[in-house]
Amino acid sequence: MSRFWSDLAHDLQPYVPGEQPRIEGLVKLNTNESPFGPSPKVFDAIRAEAADSLRLYPDPQATALRESLAAYHGLTPDQVFVGNGSDEVLAHAFAGLLKHERPLLFPDITYSFYPVYCRLFGVVHETVPLDGDMRIRLTDYDRDAGAIILANPNAPTGIALGRGDIAALLARHADIPVVIDEAYVDFGGESAIPLIADHPNLLVVQTMSKSRALAGLRVGYALGQAPLVEGLTRVKDSFNSYPLGRPAQAGAIASIADEPWFQRSRDAVIAGRERMSRGLEALGFEVLPSAANFVFARHPSRGGVDLAKSLRERAVLVRHFNAPRIADFLRITVGTDTQVDRLLEALQAVL
Amino acid sequence: MSRFWSDLAHDLQPYVPGEQPRIEGLVKLNTNESPFGPSPKVFDAIRAEAADSLRLYPDPQATALRESLAAYHGLTPDQVFVGNGSDEVLAHAFAGLLKHERPLLFPDITYSFYPVYCRLFGVVHETVPLDGDMRIRLTDYDRDAGAIILANPNAPTGIALGRGDIAALLARHADIPVVIDEAYVDFGGESAIPLIADHPNLLVVQTMSKSRALAGLRVGYALGQAPLVEGLTRVKDSFNSYPLGRPAQAGAIASIADEPWFQRSRDAVIAGRERMSRGLEALGFEVLPSAANFVFARHPSRGGVDLAKSLRERAVLVRHFNAPRIADFLRITVGTDTQVDRLLEALQAVL
Repeated sequence: MSRFWSDLAHDLQPYVPGEQPRIEGLVKLNTNESPFGPSPKVFDAIRAEAADSLRLYPDPQATALRESLAAYHGLTPDQVFVGNGSDEVLAHAFAGLLKHERPLLFPDITYSFYPVYCRLFGVVHETVPLDGDMRIRLTDYDRDAGAIILANPNAPTGIALGRGDIAALLARHADIPVVIDEAYVDFGGESAIPLIADHPNLLVVQTMSKSRALAGLRVGYALGQAPLVEGLTRVKDSFNSYPLGRPAQAGAIASIADEPWFQRSRDAVIAGRERMSRGLEALGFEVLPSAANFVFARHPSRGGVDLAKSLRERAVLVRHFNAPRIADFLRITVGTDTQVDRLLEALQAVL
Repeated sequence: MSRFWSDLAHDLQPYVPGEQPRIEGLVKLNTNESPFGPSPKVFDAIRAEAADSLRLYPDPQATALRESLAAYHGLTPDQVFVGNGSDEVLAHAFAGLLKHERPLLFPDITYSFYPVYCRLFGVVHETVPLDGDMRIRLTDYDRDAGAIILANPNAPTGIALGRGDIAALLARHADIPVVIDEAYVDFGGESAIPLIADHPNLLVVQTMSKSRALAGLRVGYALGQAPLVEGLTRVKDSFNSYPLGRPAQAGAIASIADEPWFQRSRDAVIAGRERMSRGLEALGFEVLPSAANFVFARHPSRGGVDLAKSLRERAVLVRHFNAPRIADFLRITVGTDTQVDRLLEALQAVL
């Protein structure tokens, strides 16, 4: 607390990211990072940027990266917005697209950064409870709203809605912006990107931190019809003209260019998820059906906080949310086979 | 314009950065970049980050970088805040420290991003005219205010206030936050950093984009007593947990470690500025006394927009601001000797 803070600074309740500890031999399954490194083409591209040209500002419009993303997703560059991780992209969307007189709607259980953005930008919002199976029930969103944001697959449940469901939602709410946060969609969800052409109210947000294994580079993006992208650009150019440095832009372009790496890596994560889910079920866990690179699971006889603590003592880090309805669950990132074995062994010892 | 934008998005007037064109043989003196490349140690550090570890999030607190900056500036790590370029640091300062019921004060002629931030965050502000010599007159700030921000040296004039002047300002306004934006201080200004110990209301903002030739990497920082830094951190953690990627953190640390490179590069820019100023004066220009890596100059018989256009036709890019009081001026970045010669030759041909 300080008398020099603005009222805003006093009122904030900042997001708390998963911890990044330095523990020897740690099995780190708490922040949904990829267990496999990024494409080697990314390394070459970043090394090439270690040059005198670092003295120059990067392209503030990130034109080459936006062209690359547009071509990859079958869109035009004016339908692509890029930012310093999808968290920054989401922040600009909350300020520029999701703040209206009527309330923004999102699930009671979802990415816990959403209410934080609301407080930062003064966005009026209401949460809509997941149903008893921890699923988003779209008919519950048929109510007075200024905007809607959904994570699909949802976090931390990992449960996905189909593209047809999203299309129906967009049609029923054609007069308000709808943001679909697809941070985890590459691991088994159906992207809403094909719906952009017919839905001027749709913004799709994706990240390179998960399925492209570039959490350390900070690149996220949003896709939508040009007027939505222009709204985001107006906010971005009122905040920071150059959010993506030269290594980030070059590395991201190289990642998009390596489709074989992307497919292999994603397939391996999906296979690892199924193996991990079966292993957890064999230990008695209830595992929600995940389309993400993590699972959300609970044990019938052991609480989440207790299990997370016991695992940590065995150098296995998972995420636990001390929040209503989900305090019994653990969110466990899909690791390599070796890491999953370490997790299952540790759980066996603990249970 | 779009019905899906928030009112905020409609009301913004985004900042327009200097252009980054791709013109063959261009002499680019429009965005105050360093004419010399960064330390080679930075290249090594960035290359080392082109590795599997990119799959992992960076340290959200940037602890190693903050420790490095703290040691360099004789402070403690909790007195250091880092961000995605000093523009992002400034944005967080406007939201977290400069927004109060009483108006924020800054000069009528200064970094043109300040009023943009005010609009984004709804900061009530008043501008204080520079005096007839384009100088900040500190007694003009003895008025009702909620906060003050000054660029020192000021932009785009390049004119610096002394540390004693800043100390007097801080003492006269001990009850409100005062931000000193020192983007250009390394080129001849006196930093206010030694005043931090005695002034809990002082925040100093610096950048690695200018004197450390790292505009392409996006690293800026703020220094102040711990409560001010905590205020910034609260805003940052409500916006984007991981603004600095791994290459940026590593490159910045390496830059700070190469003091001989820093001293040589800065001395060369200062020598180049003096040479450029004398050359401009020989052509009849009035050149304001600059403590920055640019000069602000006007010709008695030729308007700024006309001169900038004529220079551009000769592949020499300088910055012109189409704004009251300064429309006759050009802001010209200090280049290499060869670039300065090209500039002076082009001006000779034009005048």
